[in-house]
Amino acid sequence: MFSGAQISLYPMSDDFVDIILGALNALEPWRDRLRLDTDHLSTLMVGPPEVMFPAMRDLFCAAARTDVHTTMHATVSRGCPGEPDDPICQPVTGQKRDMRMADRIAASRAAVAHAVRTEQDIAAQLSLYPLGVGHHMDEIYGCIEFLKGSGVFDRSKNFCTALRGDAGPVFETLGQAFTSFGSETGHIAMDVTVSANSPSVA
Amino acid sequence: MFSGAQISLYPMSDDFVDIILGALNALEPWRDRLRLDTDHLSTLMVGPPEVMFPAMRDLFCAAARTDVHTTMHATVSRGCPGEPDDPICQPVTGQKRDMRMADRIAASRAAVAHAVRTEQDIAAQLSLYPLGVGHHMDEIYGCIEFLKGSGVFDRSKNFCTALRGDAGPVFETLGQAFTSFGSETGHIAMDVTVSANSPSVA
Repeated sequence: MFSGAQISLYPMSDDFVDIILGALNALEPWRDRLRLDTDHLSTLMVGPPEVMFPAMRDLFCAAARTDVHTTMHATVSRGCPGEPDDPICQPVTGQKRDMRMADRIAASRAAVAHAVRTEQDIAAQLSLYPLGVGHHMDEIYGCIEFLKGSGVFDRSKNFCTALRGDAGPVFETLGQAFTSFGSETGHIAMDVTVSANSPSVA
Repeated sequence: MFSGAQISLYPMSDDFVDIILGALNALEPWRDRLRLDTDHLSTLMVGPPEVMFPAMRDLFCAAARTDVHTTMHATVSRGCPGEPDDPICQPVTGQKRDMRMADRIAASRAAVAHAVRTEQDIAAQLSLYPLGVGHHMDEIYGCIEFLKGSGVFDRSKNFCTALRGDAGPVFETLGQAFTSFGSETGHIAMDVTVSANSPSVA
């Protein structure tokens, strides 16, 4: 199944070009398992979710460690009709989709509890869109239940859920939300914003 | 029907706070027809689509006129289950949903052709998500056909469509995409990024 994301990094600084170029070095350990293609709006990242989310984490943390207020936006998608199948996108781990909702939620929370920690505090908000199914809200409500017990839940907002915590468990939570809810082979999209060093955070 | 957006403005400058605060003045003419609520990640804007998209245009253009590379992201939604109905959200104009797809595309293109021009060149990319329906791709393909003939089509990308042109017709195109495709009363979400003054644009 084709899976990937359009990713944009926004350092709020006069030095934004150098910060972005410097942060791209953090993708080196992941580069052989991803396909990347950049234009002036975003970078297309194609690869399995288990590689994409840690790669996004490392890219964002590299920029955030400059202490500049930085945000990143990702439009993440899998199973999009019309996209070619791609060997690079094969999931690394087994699917959990034969499990009941309660067991999927428990397995996802366990994965977050074991996530690598980065010592970089971040905020995030996400919206999950299971497409082409009649009961999309059942999967969304299941995902929201997972998020509330993820350990990085901040609050519910209109149209999205806000998270806050160490970048390790936050990105693991984003990855679990993307892979554990919605139809296993269906079309799922996710709209994600992450933020660090905001002067507005109390 | 409840409709609104979570909007974030990102000026890539050391002066990002002043640029954001200055741009907010551009919302004054729209403020009595919108409900706004800001936190450290985004501003919730609640109101009818016919007010939201021009308001977003004016907010973004005010920041872009500083000549700083600025982007804006919006998670736009209507008909979301669980959201309260809100009198402020009533559409201003009549719905076009009793028209066939070809007529909806023609009416949307006509609206874009008559859009106010701003003399501010911008780029944009959008993804449209019609939720809770089985044939979501039919409406997406209809929307893409509209976008290709909108006069501001740039190119197709993975997971999104890129636009480029004057901010007036570009935001009118975004508004038409949001209101003219997908079920009239159904749950529709849109993921939008706009950009101006990028040093990467040839």
